[in-house]
Amino acid sequence: MPSRVLAALAHPTIGHLDPAFLALMDEVRDGLRRVFATRNPFTLAMSGTGSAGMETVIVNLVEPGERVVVGVNGVFGGRLAEVARRTGAEVHTVDAAWGTALDPAAIADAVRRHRPHLVALVHAETSTGVANDVAGLADVIHEHGGLFVLDCVTSLGGMPVEIDAWGVDAAYSGTQKCLSCPPGLSPVTLSARAVDRLDRRTRPVPSWYLDLTLLRSYWGQERAYHHTAPINMIYALHEALAIVDEEGLAPRFARHQAVHQRLAAELTELGLAFVSQDGHRLPMLNAIAAPPGVDEAIVRRRLLDEHGIEIGGGLGAFKGKAWRIGLMGHGATFDSVDRVVAGLRTLLR
Amino acid sequence: MPSRVLAALAHPTIGHLDPAFLALMDEVRDGLRRVFATRNPFTLAMSGTGSAGMETVIVNLVEPGERVVVGVNGVFGGRLAEVARRTGAEVHTVDAAWGTALDPAAIADAVRRHRPHLVALVHAETSTGVANDVAGLADVIHEHGGLFVLDCVTSLGGMPVEIDAWGVDAAYSGTQKCLSCPPGLSPVTLSARAVDRLDRRTRPVPSWYLDLTLLRSYWGQERAYHHTAPINMIYALHEALAIVDEEGLAPRFARHQAVHQRLAAELTELGLAFVSQDGHRLPMLNAIAAPPGVDEAIVRRRLLDEHGIEIGGGLGAFKGKAWRIGLMGHGATFDSVDRVVAGLRTLLR
Repeated sequence: MPSRVLAALAHPTIGHLDPAFLALMDEVRDGLRRVFATRNPFTLAMSGTGSAGMETVIVNLVEPGERVVVGVNGVFGGRLAEVARRTGAEVHTVDAAWGTALDPAAIADAVRRHRPHLVALVHAETSTGVANDVAGLADVIHEHGGLFVLDCVTSLGGMPVEIDAWGVDAAYSGTQKCLSCPPGLSPVTLSARAVDRLDRRTRPVPSWYLDLTLLRSYWGQERAYHHTAPINMIYALHEALAIVDEEGLAPRFARHQAVHQRLAAELTELGLAFVSQDGHRLPMLNAIAAPPGVDEAIVRRRLLDEHGIEIGGGLGAFKGKAWRIGLMGHGATFDSVDRVVAGLRTLLR
Repeated sequence: MPSRVLAALAHPTIGHLDPAFLALMDEVRDGLRRVFATRNPFTLAMSGTGSAGMETVIVNLVEPGERVVVGVNGVFGGRLAEVARRTGAEVHTVDAAWGTALDPAAIADAVRRHRPHLVALVHAETSTGVANDVAGLADVIHEHGGLFVLDCVTSLGGMPVEIDAWGVDAAYSGTQKCLSCPPGLSPVTLSARAVDRLDRRTRPVPSWYLDLTLLRSYWGQERAYHHTAPINMIYALHEALAIVDEEGLAPRFARHQAVHQRLAAELTELGLAFVSQDGHRLPMLNAIAAPPGVDEAIVRRRLLDEHGIEIGGGLGAFKGKAWRIGLMGHGATFDSVDRVVAGLRTLLR
């Protein structure tokens, strides 16, 4: 985390209805709109981590019995499907092998077949290091009367995210990935179409805590008390968004890409291979195969203990088989690449 | 907030599966057990504010069609009833006038009449400054096969809370009240009886984010990834609990009581009256009537702008009619009393 963000986190806590805090919330909303590339008035930070954002979007926009199509090619797509099932929706998945991208034609087919009320997929699948294609999907989804939901937990602030241009109706993210802010908040944005769907609900949102029909009164003009906002986390997000603005989105995305390319070249030299499909690799999350004969957990533990570097293990189908090297936001530097490569070189020698 | 807590909040963020962080989580659990006065192994901090803790307890322990009795004598009792209704439960309320305490005999009657699966009430009703009686309720609730749930958002760390001695099966709190930690986490504890109920659920918990059947694997021995914990908030809570331990619970409660008595005496001298029933007044939340002919919102705004003191306005039935003076945790000092009384004296002159 940037020291500026940690310093902001430690500012004295003020009241959640204090006019100074409300002004800060407005600036956070504006900053989130810039990074989401949206003009959506309904943009806010939910008081929970990225998974709370996922649940927020699904439980507010889906009612029992509705048809939902979810693209699943990793843990987080699977989680989206599970959250949708718990609302009582009829969930259809479009699957792709772990490490490969979802097929947009298969999603379009599922939309024509099921005429879903909502289609959701993960932009940057953190469990496999794969970027899913988004462009063009909104048209077919909207033609069939559905809403398009995009999980931007890992992509936001690290690669292009174009909510308005892509026709996305609801998106959510987390603060601890490419925004380089501690975990604890989940940015959420809703299009006018999504807000209209919210207004036409026939039942109360099953979750009171995540109920956007109530929360918008707090983030909106009325400032009606809903729950106490996590004040200090909002300070930190405000500072993190200021840092993003200072760098600019295009240079920030280019930096992530350049750092990823350096890492990819170095890993190839070490004889390590990506488990994610060429052409769909995420810049900020590099998923590579643990070499045969190596205990991947021991290497990760020694990287942490002896080199002070934490890399992720494989999740789900990749458990015990892959490493996930995150180069996100503030941590996406050539120095990070050199350090992790040096550590791996020593441990794999 | 104590500067030690703010400093802890700003410690460098580490991974949510880092062994150093997992050790810290164990210490947080132990500290929460001490302040809840419980030996419950199932004690953790949920990744949300106090309302998330409320929702956690209700959605995990109630299934659709079950009977729930809720005591309602303020905003937060009303919120408990609403959260329970959204699970599809059959909710019966036991009401008392705002500013008065719930009648334990009326709750016992409702238990005998409805044989509820769960009974919930608020220990310290923040909207009215009233303490509800708890002792003895567990027996009648358990005799009729129900679980006893207690909202300890405002009471925890500021007045005696005895989860085991009182036979409470599930309790939740918030960090930003008498624990003097920024808002963003919700301590939750479950008795063996509540855990057994959780194990006998016939349907998945409607909220994935708040699903304790999944979260206990992360807080337990398995350390299975569920969602990314709000790392820095856990640092802060760890430090806040250390401060509570250093002071000791009994001296801490006595301090809150002494400070409350000083405030009460000073307010009487200013001609101000409590809206909360004598004998049931909370030490940490003093609800007083705004005097006739005074615009209460202007006084609050001037207290904030000219004296740097924030007091709460009335909520619900007390909106526009009451002030709520919080003297919680780190802020429960004679100096705070003197400052707010001096401010009110100037503004009401």
